[in-house]
Amino acid sequence: MPAVEEMIRAHPSKPPVGGSEYAACLRACGECARTCGACADACLAEETIAALRRCIRLNLDCADACDATGRMLSRQFEPNLDLLHRQLELCRLACEACGDECARHGDRHEHCRLAAEACRRCEEACTGLLGAMPGAARPVH
Amino acid sequence: MPAVEEMIRAHPSKPPVGGSEYAACLRACGECARTCGACADACLAEETIAALRRCIRLNLDCADACDATGRMLSRQFEPNLDLLHRQLELCRLACEACGDECARHGDRHEHCRLAAEACRRCEEACTGLLGAMPGAARPVH
Amino acid sequence: MPAVEEMIRAHPSKPPVGGSEYAACLRACGECARTCGACADACLAEETIAALRRCIRLNLDCADACDATGRMLSRQFEPNLDLLHRQLELCRLACEACGDECARHGDRHEHCRLAAEACRRCEEACTGLLGAMPGAARPVH
Amino acid sequence: MPAVEEMIRAHPSKPPVGGSEYAACLRACGECARTCGACADACLAEETIAALRRCIRLNLDCADACDATGRMLSRQFEPNLDLLHRQLELCRLACEACGDECARHGDRHEHCRLAAEACRRCEEACTGLLGAMPGAARPVH
Repeated sequence: MPAVEEMIRAHPSKPPVGGSEYAACLRACGECARTCGACADACLAEETIAALRRCIRLNLDCADACDATGRMLSRQFEPNLDLLHRQLELCRLACEACGDECARHGDRHEHCRLAAEACRRCEEACTGLLGAMPGAARPVH
Repeated sequence: MPAVEEMIRAHPSKPPVGGSEYAACLRACGECARTCGACADACLAEETIAALRRCIRLNLDCADACDATGRMLSRQFEPNLDLLHRQLELCRLACEACGDECARHGDRHEHCRLAAEACRRCEEACTGLLGAMPGAARPVH
Repeated sequence: MPAVEEMIRAHPSKPPVGGSEYAACLRACGECARTCGACADACLAEETIAALRRCIRLNLDCADACDATGRMLSRQFEPNLDLLHRQLELCRLACEACGDECARHGDRHEHCRLAAEACRRCEEACTGLLGAMPGAARPVH
Repeated sequence: MPAVEEMIRAHPSKPPVGGSEYAACLRACGECARTCGACADACLAEETIAALRRCIRLNLDCADACDATGRMLSRQFEPNLDLLHRQLELCRLACEACGDECARHGDRHEHCRLAAEACRRCEEACTGLLGAMPGAARPVH
């Protein structure tokens, strides 16, 4: 999505938080969603499919989490910052869990290695955007 | 989805948590996702659309959150309970925020009233399932 | 989704086509999406997973097709009837292909039998709604 | 998604059709989905929102169509070519309808101009991949 910065600038509202971090996170979510979906399908085609069940399951969870996060980030109009914060935390957790599992299979399966990398990039992008959010947006537990 | 309990029982793995709460939450997510999507579209058709911008925005966020939660709940195989817990908390928060906004327009627009009700039901269903989860699954903050 | 008829009536615009067929199709799409997603996950948990690869693949395609169709049907405002027609045809085809594959495993796996049934119901609901659409909406090939 | 070609090559199965066309279409679907979602939200923030209702509606349809197509394309394992063909035709039609509407507002709203461009690129990418599909996959009407 090379035009993502252009699209963010074209919106009547500014991005709610961050600047370059916002665009980077939006882009990383899209990449990770499709890469994890592709890894799930590639695992399905492997002879060793039985050893990849957990990887497939987490790939599907991660793809859904990244798609939902990308959809929310594509909306800059009057965001609920608490909701955005939780969505980013959830996405980071999904990417961490999926990336860890993919990494375990990365030396045998190139698609798992690539998915682990996409998960790491998306995890870091979520962390970067969370770090750019105002403290008030962080829920107190 | 009258067959949701049957489908949960037909899975080789038991639902990770809850029993009736699990089925209720899966059903509520599907209902809330489509009802909020329909409310966003109905708001679009209202003459007073300018006063409904925030409602549309939250409807779309809520629909995406409920869809992602429903997709995760439809997977019973080796779930990551921490991830499920966070997904349910996110979904509850999205339903609360969207339901509050819809309720503000509920006396003028029947679709907003119905969406607020669907949000409340889904919020309660998430709370019910969260309450059925083992303490160990709750992230410590 | 017991409130689907209420929600359709609460919209400022009438449903673009059909009446009871519209509500039935919207409901069937939601049911089929989650049931096929659950069947994919249940297949993942089966010992005979290697024989169920194709079933998993089609389950995921069908879930995505049904979700997209349900989302489109939840919008009654100025629909593009040609687009709606194609979406319904696509959904019917996805349900047919997935239902045929699930049915092949239905005597061994209850979740495949239930998914095949959900596919058949959704296929019939799409056919019913397509039959209620005006001839002008049908693309000439 | 710079890694999309790498991911396609890493799959045990070859892409079912095309080569560079397959990767280009997968990438264009992701870009168009998020760009149209962002345009819908930007329209929501415009003072002239009432004139942009139809644009918002088509943006949401197009985003859902592109997401479903991108998800299907991310699966290379034993695809149903007839289903893929129909999905690509649907996506092309959604992009055409949405792009036409966005283009009508493109001189007043930069986000509509950018969305129209993303729709055109995705429409062409679908056409390119459809052109690379074997004749046998094309349904006879």
